[in-house]
Amino acid sequence: MADRIQPRTLKGFRDFLPEAELQREAVFETARTVFRSYGFVPIDTPALEYTEILMGKGSDETDKQLYRFTDNGGRDVAMRFDLTVPLARYAAQHIGELGTPFKRYHIGSVWRGENTQRGRYREFMQCDFDTIGTESVVSDIETALVIHDLLTALGIERFTVRINNRRLLNGLLEARGLTDQATGVLRSLDKLDKVGPDAVRSDLVATVGIPESDANALVDLAALSGGSDILDQVDVGDSELGARGIDELRQFMAGVEAAGVEPGRIVLDMGIARGLDYYTGTVYETVLDDLPDIGSVCSGGRYDDLASLYTNQRLPGVGASLGVDRLLAALEELSPESSARTSAPVLMTLFDDSRRSEHLAVVAGLRRAGVGVELYPEARKLGAQLKYGDRRGHTLAVIIGDTEWDDETAQIKVLATGDSHVVDQDELADACRRLLGDA
Amino acid sequence: MADRIQPRTLKGFRDFLPEAELQREAVFETARTVFRSYGFVPIDTPALEYTEILMGKGSDETDKQLYRFTDNGGRDVAMRFDLTVPLARYAAQHIGELGTPFKRYHIGSVWRGENTQRGRYREFMQCDFDTIGTESVVSDIETALVIHDLLTALGIERFTVRINNRRLLNGLLEARGLTDQATGVLRSLDKLDKVGPDAVRSDLVATVGIPESDANALVDLAALSGGSDILDQVDVGDSELGARGIDELRQFMAGVEAAGVEPGRIVLDMGIARGLDYYTGTVYETVLDDLPDIGSVCSGGRYDDLASLYTNQRLPGVGASLGVDRLLAALEELSPESSARTSAPVLMTLFDDSRRSEHLAVVAGLRRAGVGVELYPEARKLGAQLKYGDRRGHTLAVIIGDTEWDDETAQIKVLATGDSHVVDQDELADACRRLLGDA
Repeated sequence: MADRIQPRTLKGFRDFLPEAELQREAVFETARTVFRSYGFVPIDTPALEYTEILMGKGSDETDKQLYRFTDNGGRDVAMRFDLTVPLARYAAQHIGELGTPFKRYHIGSVWRGENTQRGRYREFMQCDFDTIGTESVVSDIETALVIHDLLTALGIERFTVRINNRRLLNGLLEARGLTDQATGVLRSLDKLDKVGPDAVRSDLVATVGIPESDANALVDLAALSGGSDILDQVDVGDSELGARGIDELRQFMAGVEAAGVEPGRIVLDMGIARGLDYYTGTVYETVLDDLPDIGSVCSGGRYDDLASLYTNQRLPGVGASLGVDRLLAALEELSPESSARTSAPVLMTLFDDSRRSEHLAVVAGLRRAGVGVELYPEARKLGAQLKYGDRRGHTLAVIIGDTEWDDETAQIKVLATGDSHVVDQDELADACRRLLGDA
Repeated sequence: MADRIQPRTLKGFRDFLPEAELQREAVFETARTVFRSYGFVPIDTPALEYTEILMGKGSDETDKQLYRFTDNGGRDVAMRFDLTVPLARYAAQHIGELGTPFKRYHIGSVWRGENTQRGRYREFMQCDFDTIGTESVVSDIETALVIHDLLTALGIERFTVRINNRRLLNGLLEARGLTDQATGVLRSLDKLDKVGPDAVRSDLVATVGIPESDANALVDLAALSGGSDILDQVDVGDSELGARGIDELRQFMAGVEAAGVEPGRIVLDMGIARGLDYYTGTVYETVLDDLPDIGSVCSGGRYDDLASLYTNQRLPGVGASLGVDRLLAALEELSPESSARTSAPVLMTLFDDSRRSEHLAVVAGLRRAGVGVELYPEARKLGAQLKYGDRRGHTLAVIIGDTEWDDETAQIKVLATGDSHVVDQDELADACRRLLGDA
């Protein structure tokens, strides 16, 4: 063919090679297992929706980032840019049938025409879970427990789930007569980790325009973190909202402790603001103690009303979202050697096409015994096949040549060390399992 | 809010409610497990590609169905309409790094602006697996074994994987001097199941324009199905191509038998044509014996050159694609009662908010023991909570009220029968597992 098309992906879009995709599948499988163990159920929604649905009130930034077009039927449509707006639309449409409380998780791709110079992708996976239709603090507690169980199940040993409550923050601002400046204050506090307390103090005074004494008090408060006892140091004056926030945080911490979470894993942190207008109660961030600079790997909060754009049924809820790309980068950095490079741990080599059927019988037996095995499809030199196994990341190679067929034995080679073991063919599955550490 | 937006999905697009999504997840999990056991590895590609890439040579039909638009950067882009074209582009781009043979699976959404009056959806999942870069019949055999293992793992007891070989068919047409009519003949044969032999015979003569004697011979041939022995009745004259097809089918069936597949599960069927120009060797269809009318639930074939549009490296391969929607409909029809309706089998009820922490401790213990359990988040009447459990599809409800807290016992209610069991709290996990049939 004369005119070949240059194979390439769009800017900001990625191919996932097997090694990366195996990692991603492992994270999602772990997430599904943890979500389910708490009774969360999966849903899915379309990638394309009416633009009107996705834009809702819409911010200018979202608008500019939307992949929006007119379909062949003349409809104004767009690709979803998150899983929260589709959840709101879905809940408004189906909640009568679903009933409440409704606990769902949703793992799916979203699309945003982001500026790729900031290292952002235009297509990425989100992994969200929410409990809708209840204001019970049990759901707030379980949200933190799910984050805890998920990171633990992923093999991350050192992490901290940081908790605050927007009622406490807003009550405190109310007590100081700063309610009108709330949005600015919370956004400023959100920058604490990045810019430090002095810069936030200046920003609060100069940009947000609050008195220096309040700025000092807020920055001092934001430095507080630990167990329930830190709440004794929080003064919300006579704000009922603030008092409710404090009470909720006390109940929250009592529940977390009752569930047996190791102290220090889930802590109060008065510096967490999560400045979105959306949140109204408990808010969540999760930092990896060994990689604090990558930011929160799982964040969320409680909201008063999910779907007011689409229904008059009030739907309070609480949920969080896993930062999939951040978490995968962290796992790669924390334990690069643990990443699986292949799906089946055993490679069965093949030398002689006339023995093909015997090989097929042996690998079928291994699979029936629960051992994943890839049969090299062509009779090639052993060296080439072992090199293939190395490259693919197989742990073991099984070699059965003429001698072995005569003796009814098999040679198992541990690819990392080069060690060889000769076993009877009817012991092969057990021997593989033993060498793989599965038995 | 005065102006609510009507919550709705686009025509041809679907929300997945939890019950349906649980089923879909179960199918994909089973598929991943089987694919991996053969050494297939996962990949992913973007939903959006350059239109030029997706259109390739492009048929008019594909063109019309494409979701195509100009992005904010002025690029002509489109949403992928299958996973085969992206695989070709991906292989052309990465095969140097990946090496061959390359065995991949890919589970992902595709979009086609289909006519929804034919009951088709405009967004659906595909689930494909392919072995690229080898002509070995081992890969053809394993393709059939994967289909076999997958349906078996899904609990389908009666199915038939039907096999033919395009070389045999083309050789036969060559021997009869009908090579120029090949496309028409194969398309006509593809309709056999739907319209019957008489209609196909007429079509071959009247529309395709081949002699009546050839039409009769082809329809008689197409009626042949069974083991290798039927090949004795196939006359490909002196066509080398036909002889090669017959030889490949013999080797194929020998391999399938060696792998221990129950006779009758994978059979030769001279009526399978899979009339796409694309296929050049073995072709596959899979029918459910109890639901033949839904058509093939897993189809595929061998091709000579995957990615000639994008690279001069010749990439032969073989693969198949699971018909996810068909298969889910079939599973629903074959065993509707088996469909999981919830993710955690146990519902823990809650009566008294002051006992919240004790309940959290008990459910944390159950989860640590591997029992999935949903804690009802609010202290409500028992009846309402049990009704919730019924609706959600929980198998067991655990009730711990004041009496049970005093006795350190728990009541376990089997929701389907109403039977109650009282056990010590420290026996709760074991008792649940026993009642769930896990122990």
